Amino acid sequence: MSGRRSLIVVSNRGPVSYDRVADGARIERRGGGGLVTALRGLLDQHDVTWIASAITDEDRAVAEEGGSDVVLVAHDPVAYVGYYNVIANPLLWFTQHSLWGLGAQPNLGRAEHAAWRDGYEAVNRRFAAAVVAELDNNPAATVFFHDYHLYLAPRIVRDARPGALLAHFVHIPWPRDWSALPPAMRDAIFDGLLANDLVAFHTARWAENFVDGAGDLGSTRVTHRAISIEPAEFDELSTSPAVLEQERRIVASRPELLVVRVDRTDPSKNVVRGFDAFGLLLDEHPEWRGRVTMLALLDPSRQAIPEYAEYLAAIERSAAAVNARFGTDSWRPVDLQVADNFPQSVAAYKQFDVLFVNAVYDGLNLVAKEGPLVNTRDGVLVLSENAGAHEELAEWAISVNPFDLAGQADALHQALSMGAPERRRRAEGIRAQVREHDVAAWIAGLLADVDRASRNVRP
Amino acid sequence: MSGRRSLIVVSNRGPVSYDRVADGARIERRGGGGLVTALRGLLDQHDVTWIASAITDEDRAVAEEGGSDVVLVAHDPVAYVGYYNVIANPLLWFTQHSLWGLGAQPNLGRAEHAAWRDGYEAVNRRFAAAVVAELDNNPAATVFFHDYHLYLAPRIVRDARPGALLAHFVHIPWPRDWSALPPAMRDAIFDGLLANDLVAFHTARWAENFVDGAGDLGSTRVTHRAISIEPAEFDELSTSPAVLEQERRIVASRPELLVVRVDRTDPSKNVVRGFDAFGLLLDEHPEWRGRVTMLALLDPSRQAIPEYAEYLAAIERSAAAVNARFGTDSWRPVDLQVADNFPQSVAAYKQFDVLFVNAVYDGLNLVAKEGPLVNTRDGVLVLSENAGAHEELAEWAISVNPFDLAGQADALHQALSMGAPERRRRAEGIRAQVREHDVAAWIAGLLADVDRASRNVRP
Repeated sequence: MSGRRSLIVVSNRGPVSYDRVADGARIERRGGGGLVTALRGLLDQHDVTWIASAITDEDRAVAEEGGSDVVLVAHDPVAYVGYYNVIANPLLWFTQHSLWGLGAQPNLGRAEHAAWRDGYEAVNRRFAAAVVAELDNNPAATVFFHDYHLYLAPRIVRDARPGALLAHFVHIPWPRDWSALPPAMRDAIFDGLLANDLVAFHTARWAENFVDGAGDLGSTRVTHRAISIEPAEFDELSTSPAVLEQERRIVASRPELLVVRVDRTDPSKNVVRGFDAFGLLLDEHPEWRGRVTMLALLDPSRQAIPEYAEYLAAIERSAAAVNARFGTDSWRPVDLQVADNFPQSVAAYKQFDVLFVNAVYDGLNLVAKEGPLVNTRDGVLVLSENAGAHEELAEWAISVNPFDLAGQADALHQALSMGAPERRRRAEGIRAQVREHDVAAWIAGLLADVDRASRNVRP
Repeated sequence: MSGRRSLIVVSNRGPVSYDRVADGARIERRGGGGLVTALRGLLDQHDVTWIASAITDEDRAVAEEGGSDVVLVAHDPVAYVGYYNVIANPLLWFTQHSLWGLGAQPNLGRAEHAAWRDGYEAVNRRFAAAVVAELDNNPAATVFFHDYHLYLAPRIVRDARPGALLAHFVHIPWPRDWSALPPAMRDAIFDGLLANDLVAFHTARWAENFVDGAGDLGSTRVTHRAISIEPAEFDELSTSPAVLEQERRIVASRPELLVVRVDRTDPSKNVVRGFDAFGLLLDEHPEWRGRVTMLALLDPSRQAIPEYAEYLAAIERSAAAVNARFGTDSWRPVDLQVADNFPQSVAAYKQFDVLFVNAVYDGLNLVAKEGPLVNTRDGVLVLSENAGAHEELAEWAISVNPFDLAGQADALHQALSMGAPERRRRAEGIRAQVREHDVAAWIAGLLADVDRASRNVRP
């Protein structure tokens, strides 16, 4: 492993966010999400300046004060809406998760073009300016961009500082087909990423798709490193009072067998088909009725975007349909909980007999690593072939195609019927894999890739 | 060019279909569609046995009699519905034209799996059996399969007759992403096609996607040859009484400028976005109001399939919305004609100032060749970058991204504003290209590819 280094981490969300409480005091909150959690490990080991968007009003006040290791960039509010709510989500997210029904969507009218130009480009320019300012303080620092919000910034930084060392991690799928975007947009995205010395993805599949679409890579290296979790953190969490309290509630009400899913309410997560497949299982296998519940813990997500609000409604309808058809006074087949409650999720991880991950597409899916790590019942992982984690974990999971309802019902039946020795063998396989390939190994691997990239001669 | 050869052509629709009229007499109709029209040229130059599905009751009677150069295969009616209305359309068609909104569709339940097994597989087995019977009469014949209805037949024929010479032309796009289908289905499709000595597509793009997805090609050659038209046929048609009569009607009612589109009412054709883009043009450029009409001649297609019926309704709504917003007593902005009227289409080809082809995806799109060939006004071709014809004609067309409404409105404005010399240069470019690369050249090229493939040593 390399020694201590100077890093400039750039991501839309930062590691902290600020608020002002009733008495006027400023409070600091830890940012959520797998990305921020994973990157927080960098802060202890390296000299990190983190550049992120100012999200709250108090963030904007902090942004004006400056002088911390976290540089919060305040954006024009209209530009930010175009950047975040029109281009990043849904346009890029839907394109990269192959969610568009191209017969009717997307529709790129003048508003969308303006959101690209005055929102996405403008916010990327502001991020790039903040990076250049940091580089002027510390020219030897490595710049480490993150994700789909920041595809254009690397080119702007490269043009301003040709000798800088730039890396970019894309945390979501890289699809083979980018034709949903007009040529000028997709060319700018590839051009921006190719301004980096290193572009990294979770899986070989996404990296190959990128290389394939990029044509000439120039001096850019492309790598893949699957993100992971900090096992010690989950070991500690799983015995925390909050989790134990939630676990007592689950144990008190659980039936014989529990199928668990933990997701955001995002169309890419494929919740509706999961309920439909569970309904098909109950239809075809009456022996499971009354004995199995599907517990769905869903964090409501991006409800300002119409596609997301509609999807949550569809989730509620499909859960209600299964319950209306099969439920009894003493048994609710689908237990749908729409809330952001991480202790409850960890408690459910401990209690599942089947963990169900049927994503349409997913860059990685950390649930597939977190759940098996803390599970106490040798539960079985049912895993979409389109989740990035499938490259690592398929050997110990039951694979499903996300569009194949019949196949998902079969997989649930197989998982629920599996004998104890086979369940144990599989569960142990995943636990060993995750403990060995933890988030520290991910960071070390990436930094080694950065070192290799830094030895490239730029033309 | 090679000499006369023995060919067994296999396609779902044949070159003729039969009916029985009121007095009990059998009548023979020529089959429609670009594929059948293009292949009919083979019949004069080679010894062809054509194997196709019996579609009408009278076809089934002919099938039982046997003994003609057209072998009509009668299928079990339930199997045929599964094969045609569930698997071929919409499942394969939507997958290959990237039309699924994967968040909600497709849903492969038991019915769809049964349609695959008892419909698509069963019908392909019957086709394969008919091919093997023909090969036993004529073992030296080349078998030439066509399109997405028959992906599984080549493997069955290959297993039965290892030494046969097999070729397959896929007339629709080959996408990069096949994950909408479960692994067993997509593996069977690739395996079936790779049982051929030659697999052919219209464009390099589709061929590359196939090679990319196939992995090891074994001894299979892959080629691309863009289908074309018979210029003499269109020269004759364009002065036929039926076309001249339709042309008189158009001339009598046309405004100064005419934008024409000719399509089936298929979601892949992108009619709704075309009307919306035309509405955007009229909104932003009042100077065109009253002077331009978009004449849309649409052949109603596959209305037994819900997605198609819904799409026709959406077409009608969007045309009505543009007309309600901009129409006057003397000018209807969108003239929507839903009918199967080929003479009217050819008359519109002669009269367009702009020919609008904005397909979401299209294997080739013959309209982009037919229209410019007979046009009398040096009309401008606006052409989707996702139509196969774009590889051949982009140099002389205005390219559009099918999802970019703003871009399509801009392209219409550019086309309508273009000066006469530039219009002429482009129109002459397309005409010369189509006359030189006609359907006879397509067939000759393919047969040369077959000869090259026949020299492969099979393992």
